[in-house]
Amino acid sequence: MNAPAATTGSFTMPTEKGLDHLVVELAATWGADAIRDSDGTELSPDLMKLGFEVFSTLALVRYDQAWAKQHPDHAQQKYLMAGPTLATGGELRLPLLAGYSDQQFQIDAQHDPKEWWEVIDRTSGAVLPLAGWSFDAASGAVVIAKPAPFHQYTVAFLVFQVWETTSMYNHLTNGWTGVHQRGLDPRHPETRAQMLKDVDRFIDEKPQIGWVRFTSMFYQFPIVSDDKNNARFKDWCGYLDTVSVAAIRDFEKEHGYRPRPEQFVQAGTYNTTKMVPTPFYREWVAFIDRYVHALSKDCVATARKRGKKSVLFFCDHWIGTEPYADNFQEIGYDGIVGPVINGRELRRIADVPAPVQKELRLYPYFFPVNLRNEPCFKEGGEPVKEGRAYWMAVRRSLLQAPVDRIGFGGYLSLVQKYPDFIAFVTRLADEFRAIKAASGMQLPQQAPFRLAVLTAWGKTRPWMYDQTWPDGGFFESLAGLPVAIDWISFEDLRRDGVPPGTGVLLSAGDAGSSWSGGSEWLDGCAQARIREFVWTGGGFVGLLDPSACWKDGKLFQLRDVLGFDRETGQTLDIKWNVGAKSVDQHFITADGVPPLGRLRDGVFACSTQAEILAKQDGLIALGTNRFGQGRAVYFAGFKLGASANRLAQRALYWAAGKEDTLQRSFAADPRVDCAYYPATGRMVIVNSSSETVETQVFDQNGKTSELELPPHGQIIR
Amino acid sequence: MNAPAATTGSFTMPTEKGLDHLVVELAATWGADAIRDSDGTELSPDLMKLGFEVFSTLALVRYDQAWAKQHPDHAQQKYLMAGPTLATGGELRLPLLAGYSDQQFQIDAQHDPKEWWEVIDRTSGAVLPLAGWSFDAASGAVVIAKPAPFHQYTVAFLVFQVWETTSMYNHLTNGWTGVHQRGLDPRHPETRAQMLKDVDRFIDEKPQIGWVRFTSMFYQFPIVSDDKNNARFKDWCGYLDTVSVAAIRDFEKEHGYRPRPEQFVQAGTYNTTKMVPTPFYREWVAFIDRYVHALSKDCVATARKRGKKSVLFFCDHWIGTEPYADNFQEIGYDGIVGPVINGRELRRIADVPAPVQKELRLYPYFFPVNLRNEPCFKEGGEPVKEGRAYWMAVRRSLLQAPVDRIGFGGYLSLVQKYPDFIAFVTRLADEFRAIKAASGMQLPQQAPFRLAVLTAWGKTRPWMYDQTWPDGGFFESLAGLPVAIDWISFEDLRRDGVPPGTGVLLSAGDAGSSWSGGSEWLDGCAQARIREFVWTGGGFVGLLDPSACWKDGKLFQLRDVLGFDRETGQTLDIKWNVGAKSVDQHFITADGVPPLGRLRDGVFACSTQAEILAKQDGLIALGTNRFGQGRAVYFAGFKLGASANRLAQRALYWAAGKEDTLQRSFAADPRVDCAYYPATGRMVIVNSSSETVETQVFDQNGKTSELELPPHGQIIR
Repeated sequence: MNAPAATTGSFTMPTEKGLDHLVVELAATWGADAIRDSDGTELSPDLMKLGFEVFSTLALVRYDQAWAKQHPDHAQQKYLMAGPTLATGGELRLPLLAGYSDQQFQIDAQHDPKEWWEVIDRTSGAVLPLAGWSFDAASGAVVIAKPAPFHQYTVAFLVFQVWETTSMYNHLTNGWTGVHQRGLDPRHPETRAQMLKDVDRFIDEKPQIGWVRFTSMFYQFPIVSDDKNNARFKDWCGYLDTVSVAAIRDFEKEHGYRPRPEQFVQAGTYNTTKMVPTPFYREWVAFIDRYVHALSKDCVATARKRGKKSVLFFCDHWIGTEPYADNFQEIGYDGIVGPVINGRELRRIADVPAPVQKELRLYPYFFPVNLRNEPCFKEGGEPVKEGRAYWMAVRRSLLQAPVDRIGFGGYLSLVQKYPDFIAFVTRLADEFRAIKAASGMQLPQQAPFRLAVLTAWGKTRPWMYDQTWPDGGFFESLAGLPVAIDWISFEDLRRDGVPPGTGVLLSAGDAGSSWSGGSEWLDGCAQARIREFVWTGGGFVGLLDPSACWKDGKLFQLRDVLGFDRETGQTLDIKWNVGAKSVDQHFITADGVPPLGRLRDGVFACSTQAEILAKQDGLIALGTNRFGQGRAVYFAGFKLGASANRLAQRALYWAAGKEDTLQRSFAADPRVDCAYYPATGRMVIVNSSSETVETQVFDQNGKTSELELPPHGQIIR
Repeated sequence: MNAPAATTGSFTMPTEKGLDHLVVELAATWGADAIRDSDGTELSPDLMKLGFEVFSTLALVRYDQAWAKQHPDHAQQKYLMAGPTLATGGELRLPLLAGYSDQQFQIDAQHDPKEWWEVIDRTSGAVLPLAGWSFDAASGAVVIAKPAPFHQYTVAFLVFQVWETTSMYNHLTNGWTGVHQRGLDPRHPETRAQMLKDVDRFIDEKPQIGWVRFTSMFYQFPIVSDDKNNARFKDWCGYLDTVSVAAIRDFEKEHGYRPRPEQFVQAGTYNTTKMVPTPFYREWVAFIDRYVHALSKDCVATARKRGKKSVLFFCDHWIGTEPYADNFQEIGYDGIVGPVINGRELRRIADVPAPVQKELRLYPYFFPVNLRNEPCFKEGGEPVKEGRAYWMAVRRSLLQAPVDRIGFGGYLSLVQKYPDFIAFVTRLADEFRAIKAASGMQLPQQAPFRLAVLTAWGKTRPWMYDQTWPDGGFFESLAGLPVAIDWISFEDLRRDGVPPGTGVLLSAGDAGSSWSGGSEWLDGCAQARIREFVWTGGGFVGLLDPSACWKDGKLFQLRDVLGFDRETGQTLDIKWNVGAKSVDQHFITADGVPPLGRLRDGVFACSTQAEILAKQDGLIALGTNRFGQGRAVYFAGFKLGASANRLAQRALYWAAGKEDTLQRSFAADPRVDCAYYPATGRMVIVNSSSETVETQVFDQNGKTSELELPPHGQIIR
């Protein structure tokens, strides 16, 4: 027998067919109060009688495979791009599905190719006249009779997706066999109606359940597979799977114009979220959101009419639900659940601005292999080590953002062979419940300033920029810091200025990307807003390529604010030596500077007020600047770790001019994090390292005490 | 007494006032046959009688300081840019010379600021209406009464340069005192006429000289100094110093429009040569070239009428002479001389397509400090070590490109204290003369293919891209390889295609720069030309950011040719795993792969034919691709050295498909270079390293023999 948890509740168990006894036994051990099924598992009638809260999974687009077979033209669609393919002489043939999975996609020849497809000469940039190409249905190729020699051509063409992405994933990753499930598109009124009936039918089948776990709604984030069924494009926030003839026709009715195929394939980049969205793509997203919102609302209402609560699985088919949109609450979900490997992902759930039950699906899943396809619950695997690494990251940010529940997924049969893992989860569950109780589900004491994070997406895509997967970088550090955050877009900034209460504005990411802002920086209004904010006393923190957009001989448009810019080889001879001094002693670096990973190169100081706080590998790694009454900090790199967390925190407090408030709910040792909850008067102190740590701890008023924490330890007082 | 050289001739000595005996003694030691004066030294009448060939320096723009004083409005001009300066409330003042040397420049208030200057709101991008600003002559500031809050403003304004750049350099670097010389602008007809008279006057003063050493003509490459007299902008090929009211008026007459001030200052980048030239800038360069060409021709003709030969100092005021222009020979120079620290710089002299006497001014100059401002001919200096490093680089490329003469500059008084340096120069001079004799002043055996180097500048700016100063990178390697080179522009490529005989096309440089090509890659025609060339059997070698211009989700527009592209953070999710294999055994890497320095990051394979030849620091360092019948090689970095030279050579031969011809005039050991001269039947073999090298040597037919070379050794057979 496993030693049971000290506390119970707030914990959801996966079930497994034929292993009811194990479910019951582990539920007792872990203090679970809820069970759930999932793709490929079933809830037995016996289990459902045991008093657990029951979540049952409904994947609407796959639920009615019979309907799907009857309505093959209601399968989900998308645009794909064939090529670029080079014309080397004579007629050019572009086999459309070359390089794509023909198990996942079928060419849509039902809708006239000449109406719906687009052939582009990518070398000249010209769209080919319709007479210039033909579709050879027998071979599935577009044929260009007289291409320009040595020009490249592409075809944007429509496909039906005949193997639904999650079904495909489970076959390929978890070795499933059996039928390749199809996904239905509710854009068709009959299928839309059928799906609402499906919610009823589903509840008819499982009257004992308390919750319908929508997993998720209608449109998967796109995973486009190549001819070996490996992913060749994926985008966790992408709307590619929402595209269909039916949807485009509806869009045309609403907006008065039909988008070009190129607007969807965008030269093969498919409007990836990492690119600054085009005006059209923003329109398309809004158009889809309206539809998904309305239909989701109907689904939830249907479940509610039957007395069931609804929870949104914030993954897979989440596209269009937009949990950060202003009207998300109107859908009426009772809960949201999502997979979480680190603090960033926890915050993506926890920060959803709706009073719904929030649940974390923790890792590792009870699968033979892990997220990296390495052994986990099989020989060579180290599930405890893996689980602890995730939990240390999750727990740290949990202090800053409480959630209601946790749970695991996968096969219990695999877990039963790992008693040390079972014990690890028992401890984890107790730690989670203790933090939940201590927090009173309220926020802890935070810094006396807010942080505004500026991206091209603003508040709809918080916590999405990740320097390194799966570890994370600066934003993972941020996820565990006691700072309230506003995510703002350039449009927000132009319209409303820097949000009230902002102490520091942050810009981070790769040059040209949506995270750094790319072409958004060409609009001077945002720049003027930021200059005014900093000049009059605000703080600015830039990471990697802040305000980067090559123009006027500058890469960083805010080089005057930052005090630094990057030489990219076009202006090598233009180096006004401002004589920036290196500074050894500084508030920001008082706890040291860890290696910041691969640094942006070519960084140089371009303000007489710039100070260099750290050089690494001969390059400027960290610097500061004064700009009017304000302050700026520039990081040329960032590599996650306890010391880097501290560096990030100190940088934010310094930029805000609030150095004197750092040592509140604070530990001297960066491996230890503290959170004080005014609502309960409790303080949680955690050691995220695998070492015993003795440290000075500062309470909410800055009063100190000495404390020793065991490895991974957690103390509440 | 110093041991004299074994041979004599082809060597130019500097002279020094009052040290005639030392000149004579060192001339005998080094086998010098010519003497020259320079800025700050004079030729004594006695010396001129000793039978040396005599070169005497004439700096036309500084020659007649009395005339310069009488015509202050004929001083050279330029546009400078003040700001960007931030408006933070109320009236904004831009002190124009803030951050500039007021010893070098005076504001030109003679020409109406409202006609000639331009004030720009850099935040909105708008040009300020004339009524929006005024010039306060007393304080030298432009005043903007009502600026937009937190917008940045700049002023493009005209200055007179009141301290000529070379005079300034000698004061600051060599500690000269005395008058700050002014530079005259021959754009004014009276001054133009005066300069032609000056040539006559100069020859009147020194009838014994054989050569007028023009040093150089009229316009210096720009060195703009800051308020501490440090350079804040310099551009060895820049035309900024050619700009004046008089020149602009002439341009307006010829072209029918007046360029905007912004077209000269270009947001403070001043049309640096590292940027892709704008159409206007190309026009301006051509306009200036016509003027400089005509006047230079008149100067040379004037000297010839007096029986004097003319040599162009290919440095300092060389702007507009354009030695690589088609009509350069028409000027009529008898010689060209330039400073040379490495193979690249040698090639810049040696490759000038004109049958003129070519002379290298070698380093170190006999100055207390070296090019890096470190001690040289003073305590702590190591002139022999320094000189040998330069000579090893120069000699290597000398094998590929013979020149007529060498020489040194500076103060003999400094040298006399360094007998080991004197002995080093003796050996160097003998080595030079031996190579010259062996070459018969003809090219050596070369690869059976030509290399075309593609840049935005083409043939007018060969050998200008330098990865690292002063060492150099790939092009320094190239300078010593037996490959005939054509430098071509995108315009050349579009108009004429790849030149006949080309085996390999090369694109190298930083993304966006004129060297890589930047926006030139947006024109598909050049791409099509290259694709056709490679597809049908040509070779393509790319270094760093070849064909880089972000468009259509690609950084490298020729990613299909190269087999590689770079992820810059916008398309992270789009990675079609092409399964490029790593290859251990390859012709290119048969002699090993040295560390290639800091690599471009984010490089990934995007062709199924791509092969990875080397990874370093976890990044792809070197790869190949097959494209139709052709081949491509990609270098993500390059760091100069013997092993890197070899790698470059092998890459070129492999790309050309001429591996079987590598081992002609070739040494197995990469530290050794060989050149066989068909014209004389002689072979020169040099060891550029400081080790004794035993190596197999391949003659012109590939026949091998064994050879041992001492450190830095040279063998001729």
